[in-house]
Amino acid sequence: MGLELYLDLLSQPCRAVYIFAKKNNIPFELRTVELLKGQHHSDAFAQVNPLRKVPALKDGEFTLAESVAILLYLSRKYKAPDHWYPEDLQARARVDEYLSWQHTALRSSCTRAMWQKMMFPVFLGERVPPETLASTLAELDSCLQLLEDKFLKDQDFLIGPHISVADLVAITELMHPLHLGPSSHSPSAPAAKSSKADPNWLPGTTV
Amino acid sequence: MGLELYLDLLSQPCRAVYIFAKKNNIPFELRTVELLKGQHHSDAFAQVNPLRKVPALKDGEFTLAESVAILLYLSRKYKAPDHWYPEDLQARARVDEYLSWQHTALRSSCTRAMWQKMMFPVFLGERVPPETLASTLAELDSCLQLLEDKFLKDQDFLIGPHISVADLVAITELMHPLHLGPSSHSPSAPAAKSSKADPNWLPGTTV
Ligand SMILES: N[C@@H](CCC(=O)N[C@@H](CS)C(=O)NCC(=O)O)C(=O)O
Ligand SMILES: N[C@@H](CCC(=O)N[C@@H](CS)C(=O)NCC(=O)O)C(=O)O
Repeated sequence: MGLELYLDLLSQPCRAVYIFAKKNNIPFELRTVELLKGQHHSDAFAQVNPLRKVPALKDGEFTLAESVAILLYLSRKYKAPDHWYPEDLQARARVDEYLSWQHTALRSSCTRAMWQKMMFPVFLGERVPPETLASTLAELDSCLQLLEDKFLKDQDFLIGPHISVADLVAITELMHPLHLGPSSHSPSAPAAKSSKADPNWLPGTTV
Repeated sequence: MGLELYLDLLSQPCRAVYIFAKKNNIPFELRTVELLKGQHHSDAFAQVNPLRKVPALKDGEFTLAESVAILLYLSRKYKAPDHWYPEDLQARARVDEYLSWQHTALRSSCTRAMWQKMMFPVFLGERVPPETLASTLAELDSCLQLLEDKFLKDQDFLIGPHISVADLVAITELMHPLHLGPSSHSPSAPAAKSSKADPNWLPGTTV
């Protein structure tokens, strides 16, 4: 059996892996794991990823979790063009720095904002207290500010003039609300450069 | 100016970087940034790390944040022995997987448990509601279980028979309570293998 990718394309890190594999013509079997059906809790999937999260990779007998590890594994194994994960010591360190930072910063605040602003009301019929939501959005705002001031600056991409895996990880997170329905965030605006926080950027419900 | 490391040795990720540099005889100037004195909020430090966190690295004009990125930068630049970050495709992916997983798992639950069990009562004179603490400790327990079942298994180190940067990141987190004062966690127990959650493992205060 060749490379298998266990993904749900509703998930941001899954889309980063999917885009990377497609863009680099990496041959793989797509194994869809439907989160909304709870398929990630099946025993069969736990064999592939005991963490029970997507994305996950299976390559022969080798299994791997974590989108960042999967992106780097694919870029090495399939010798993706250098710009994705540059050999240059400092450029590579910049990619690593972003990939490391985002877990507890942009990704976690985007996810929290999404749950509080949309998922709780839609799925649980519950509103999050306004002050909780306000503090989540303030944190998101400060992450977006750091994304611009520390990482993107006046560059075209996070690490400089060329796209890297860091951009895929960032853009799938930033664009996530657009995949989930109507949004006040204009899809025609350039995505990375327009990342400045707007409390209305998450779709739907008001507070 | 050669390599400078901006650290507060009270911080877990700083200790991982410090141990790695010392163990590999990497020459550096230690720049102490005292968190308890708020030195990470100074303008001077923001020049080195706009994220205003330690650890941070300065190497000539190049600055770098994030302990994981710093560890990988040092291992590449100073050609540290292979076991720290193995060339082997699958072994390296295992290190990346752990380094990626820990941010929102072991590290975040250890940190939250520490704050709720110790820092809030000591610094703010406030007790965290018992059900909040219980849920934090349950999450910590499940992270420790995954640490054993998915990562450590019956191996000597997280990735296999040899120590890697993943172990430094894990052990500094797991040992953190010991640095902060008396603990019910016996220091003579082997650290990684005895990681199974014990609600008393954090020192001091009761709930
Ligand atoms: N750090 C992981 C996060 C993976 C993750 O959170 N996946 C979500 C979907 S976006 C998931 O599988 N959630 C299911 C669950 O937590 O039960 C990565 O980057 O791969
Ligand atoms: N993901 C970062 C985390 C760094 C971090 O959280 N550092 C803490 C000390 S352990 C810090 O500087 N905190 C100061 C603050 O957040 O104000 C890394 O691994 O380097």
